[in-house]
Amino acid sequence: MNEITSRKNPLVVHMKKLGGDGDYRRQSGEFLCDGDKLLREALSYGADVTAVLFSGVKPEGLPADIPAYEVPRDLITAVSPLKTPQGVLFACRIPAPASSPITGGFHIILEGIQDPGNVGTILRTAGAFNVGSVILTGGCADPYNPKTIRASMGAIFRQPIVPAEIDDIRALKKSGLKIYGAALSEDSRDVRNVIFNNAAVAIGSEGRGLSRDLLDLCDEEIIIPMLPECESLNAAVAAAIVMWEAARGIW
Amino acid sequence: MNEITSRKNPLVVHMKKLGGDGDYRRQSGEFLCDGDKLLREALSYGADVTAVLFSGVKPEGLPADIPAYEVPRDLITAVSPLKTPQGVLFACRIPAPASSPITGGFHIILEGIQDPGNVGTILRTAGAFNVGSVILTGGCADPYNPKTIRASMGAIFRQPIVPAEIDDIRALKKSGLKIYGAALSEDSRDVRNVIFNNAAVAIGSEGRGLSRDLLDLCDEEIIIPMLPECESLNAAVAAAIVMWEAARGIW
Repeated sequence: MNEITSRKNPLVVHMKKLGGDGDYRRQSGEFLCDGDKLLREALSYGADVTAVLFSGVKPEGLPADIPAYEVPRDLITAVSPLKTPQGVLFACRIPAPASSPITGGFHIILEGIQDPGNVGTILRTAGAFNVGSVILTGGCADPYNPKTIRASMGAIFRQPIVPAEIDDIRALKKSGLKIYGAALSEDSRDVRNVIFNNAAVAIGSEGRGLSRDLLDLCDEEIIIPMLPECESLNAAVAAAIVMWEAARGIW
Repeated sequence: MNEITSRKNPLVVHMKKLGGDGDYRRQSGEFLCDGDKLLREALSYGADVTAVLFSGVKPEGLPADIPAYEVPRDLITAVSPLKTPQGVLFACRIPAPASSPITGGFHIILEGIQDPGNVGTILRTAGAFNVGSVILTGGCADPYNPKTIRASMGAIFRQPIVPAEIDDIRALKKSGLKIYGAALSEDSRDVRNVIFNNAAVAIGSEGRGLSRDLLDLCDEEIIIPMLPECESLNAAVAAAIVMWEAARGIW
């Protein structure tokens, strides 16, 4: 039986830093996940699980080559960045960005969406509505932040995520992808009248909207009609309605 | 100039309790809001603002009969339940539940949605898509929790909110309102094929779904089609898609 009891154990220190430190995640190329259900999702989608800590019962179905250590409950609480950790923590390798070109289908571009809960919710919705890639640009929340992962409800293991600079988006446009910008101006095209094939819709932050650079790249601006006294929708809600509109005409 | 500097001042104590204590909110019939923008919304929608605390510049356009006190910045921080308070806090009276009967139009029933951010986001989306009433049942988050209010982005002052027991919903059904339950079973009616007039859709918590009592009241169950590997949507996203579907055919 493998047991760890010390908070100074190098693996414990490593996992705690994975949970709390985005730079460390990028350097080490791993991220931290919380919960038995998420572990089952990780395994079933072929994620590269590097280590598991559990208190109590060892998670079922764990391949023999994944190191797993029993730890005291209070050590789980100390390592997890979440307020209500479950009894299982595990580290995964961050997958390499998809190498296949983004053409055909429908994609979402998120610009400057800083709330990890919103980014995680958008990943979850993208997974539900068969969105190709979720392209992150302009300082979005880290998709491997534990709060993003929790909100994504397992979509982090299924949904292609593409970090991008504005030049990458320019290259996508050159390759033939149509770029729409979700905007609020009255002369934008109604989201109900958009053809979403071989296209990406860019969603900006609620406070600032899309950047001038990204708006300049857009083939067209689109709008979700709403009552005039409401200024805007929550970013995850706006993204959900766009993704649903892209799916609803096809299904 | 009215100034308060002591944290023991009765009004300061009152406002701090309004922010942190749901029972106290219900007893006193008031709630706490944070921010200048929210104050402008409150005034423009005729909310009954009972007192204002501000640090720095006095908010503009404040009627003379609303008591307003300048306070040190650290007192605002001490009173606000939010991590990043703005410079203005104010108390409002909780409006009496709408006395007009809920007939015609489209309404949302939330059952057991405990996350204040989700409830606030749903209120905001309901305001955008012209939903009649948001009916809260089965232990939802307090709509007057400061986190709900912040997520509602002012919709708390515009959107009719109706607290209800299961018997109240039974009475609505008897009065002719059609009740749909958002469910996940395959034989439910596709949300794209529902007529949403004189109807309410019930959305349950992500973990438990709708209660047996509420399901028994439903005329029909409806489903948002999604990829099979996704178990469900975030409650605020599911509610948003239902509300958008109710609006999109009319607008």
